[in-house]
Amino acid sequence: MLRGHQTWVFSSKPCIIASSAIGGPFEAQGALSGDFDILHDDLWLGQTTYEKAEKKLLEDACETAIQKAGLKKEDIQFFLCGDLMNQIVSSSFAARTLGIPFFGLYGACSSSMEGLALAALLLDSKAAKYVLCATASHNASVEKQFRYPTEYGSQKPPTAQWTVTGAGAAILAPKGQGPRVKAATIGRVVDMGITDPFNMGAAMAPAAVDTLEAHFRDTGLGFDNYDLIATGDLGRVGNTIAVDLLKKHGLPVPQDKFTDCGLLIYKEDQPVMAGGSGCACAATVTYGHIFNRMKKGELKKVLIAATGALLSPLTFQQNESIPGICYAVSFEYDGEG
Amino acid sequence: MLRGHQTWVFSSKPCIIASSAIGGPFEAQGALSGDFDILHDDLWLGQTTYEKAEKKLLEDACETAIQKAGLKKEDIQFFLCGDLMNQIVSSSFAARTLGIPFFGLYGACSSSMEGLALAALLLDSKAAKYVLCATASHNASVEKQFRYPTEYGSQKPPTAQWTVTGAGAAILAPKGQGPRVKAATIGRVVDMGITDPFNMGAAMAPAAVDTLEAHFRDTGLGFDNYDLIATGDLGRVGNTIAVDLLKKHGLPVPQDKFTDCGLLIYKEDQPVMAGGSGCACAATVTYGHIFNRMKKGELKKVLIAATGALLSPLTFQQNESIPGICYAVSFEYDGEG
Repeated sequence: MLRGHQTWVFSSKPCIIASSAIGGPFEAQGALSGDFDILHDDLWLGQTTYEKAEKKLLEDACETAIQKAGLKKEDIQFFLCGDLMNQIVSSSFAARTLGIPFFGLYGACSSSMEGLALAALLLDSKAAKYVLCATASHNASVEKQFRYPTEYGSQKPPTAQWTVTGAGAAILAPKGQGPRVKAATIGRVVDMGITDPFNMGAAMAPAAVDTLEAHFRDTGLGFDNYDLIATGDLGRVGNTIAVDLLKKHGLPVPQDKFTDCGLLIYKEDQPVMAGGSGCACAATVTYGHIFNRMKKGELKKVLIAATGALLSPLTFQQNESIPGICYAVSFEYDGEG
Repeated sequence: MLRGHQTWVFSSKPCIIASSAIGGPFEAQGALSGDFDILHDDLWLGQTTYEKAEKKLLEDACETAIQKAGLKKEDIQFFLCGDLMNQIVSSSFAARTLGIPFFGLYGACSSSMEGLALAALLLDSKAAKYVLCATASHNASVEKQFRYPTEYGSQKPPTAQWTVTGAGAAILAPKGQGPRVKAATIGRVVDMGITDPFNMGAAMAPAAVDTLEAHFRDTGLGFDNYDLIATGDLGRVGNTIAVDLLKKHGLPVPQDKFTDCGLLIYKEDQPVMAGGSGCACAATVTYGHIFNRMKKGELKKVLIAATGALLSPLTFQQNESIPGICYAVSFEYDGEG
């Protein structure tokens, strides 16, 4: 199971029997709109607050994944979930709705792969038959939480990113049809001293590189062994830094194999500054777009390195720098059950 | 491994080879002062903010546990940690200091046993050789986060509880000398509609009862099989409700076997209203006092049911009720290695 210092290799290769991607109106205009299960045209989702809208996104994602798997919620032993709200209330309140035994996680925008790594471990060690893991973010609730309410209309620098309104969920089972989880590399917290909360990409890039290097070292694999390696939400700034750092560390990056979910989700003409971000960025792109590409046979072996910035508004006010983390999970799909 | 619907039984019985309990000045005057490894006489711990003091408590707890285990931090594969601050920054920043691959958790005051359940799973499935899990709370940082800054001197009703200033850590290994983890029952989110953030005990009691019932159902065990069952921080109000509910559900409670960490930690004459609370309550009482009693041979079989209230100040303001959760972990100690 444990390989090297920080990687798990799952001998049973747990299967993702169903996944879902939910988006908002801005994602509906994006580059990957065809890969979402539901696209809401109302940013409020009929709720009275943006926070309740975020919880609704999460509930939609979970319900859709459960339905696609042909299961009932009572069939699922554990629900692993995290989000960006204070005290992860979107996750906890969705867990109240679902009634499934619950692990609350916090990995900021890396929560999707933090949860998926643990979910695969639960399957591989026979600690569960079915596990649901999910995450969500909402542009307006997250901006309000971390920076300014969107109603202020405050300007942002070009290094800033656009928080994805959406949610993604995955259901893991010992067997079935779907992408299989091969390995997971658990990240360390890396902090290179970036203090600008409008430049998350730069803050998270060193963590992404640290985890990718650990993954290659622990597994003996490299870029050659993957059809695609995608980071979570480094955006344009962070992606450039990551490519530079990898090259400096003797790991030259094949351009066609290395991308970032935050660079994929929106169209060039959408005003998203350096790209997409938020828990839902890696989650919706992976559980929607990338898994769809795997099912079409376009990709067989994929590594998702979801990145998170572990700051809070308070640590920023107290002049702390921004720690980053990254969890990498590898998937393979050979079209067989 | 999976027993019943929501319980793991660990066949390898992972061993807690070292644990630590750190407290503040108020805990030094408490009933269990002799069970702490370090008692700080300065509520600020020499830091400039209460939040940094909370992080320092956590770092103290981790360093002490690592030292007591005779390990170096490089020996430890994974660090599982959660706390009550927004975006669990105490945990993330302590993880930055430690540099150990990190899982951020959020279970509010149940975080200690949420982490320990997962840590035991990691050991039992050979996903790690050594795992560190920890949690912390600080009276002044938590009151500021959830209610009012303590400097306001606002009055509280008798149902309120006193947040413990402290931190607890445990190191798990496949073998060694110390209490062994036998089983863990993972809680569901339970919400009976309590809306008063000054009455957490009442909000969490139904979750404690739900998890205890699940534990008994899944394992076939009952009060007779334990020398002590302790909830996390129900306090006087929540404890009375839990006893009543258990009795109504056909599980009469033997008074000498059922207690609450929040009722144990302080002396009768300390002005703590309904009792202690906070992540550090269950953590310090379990990792200090209860494990010491097990090592002295006073207790052989213990079940800790750590409770958490999954609200945020925002959900309270938005008129939501307070969801509760409870994770139960059982320990045994026979004095043998």
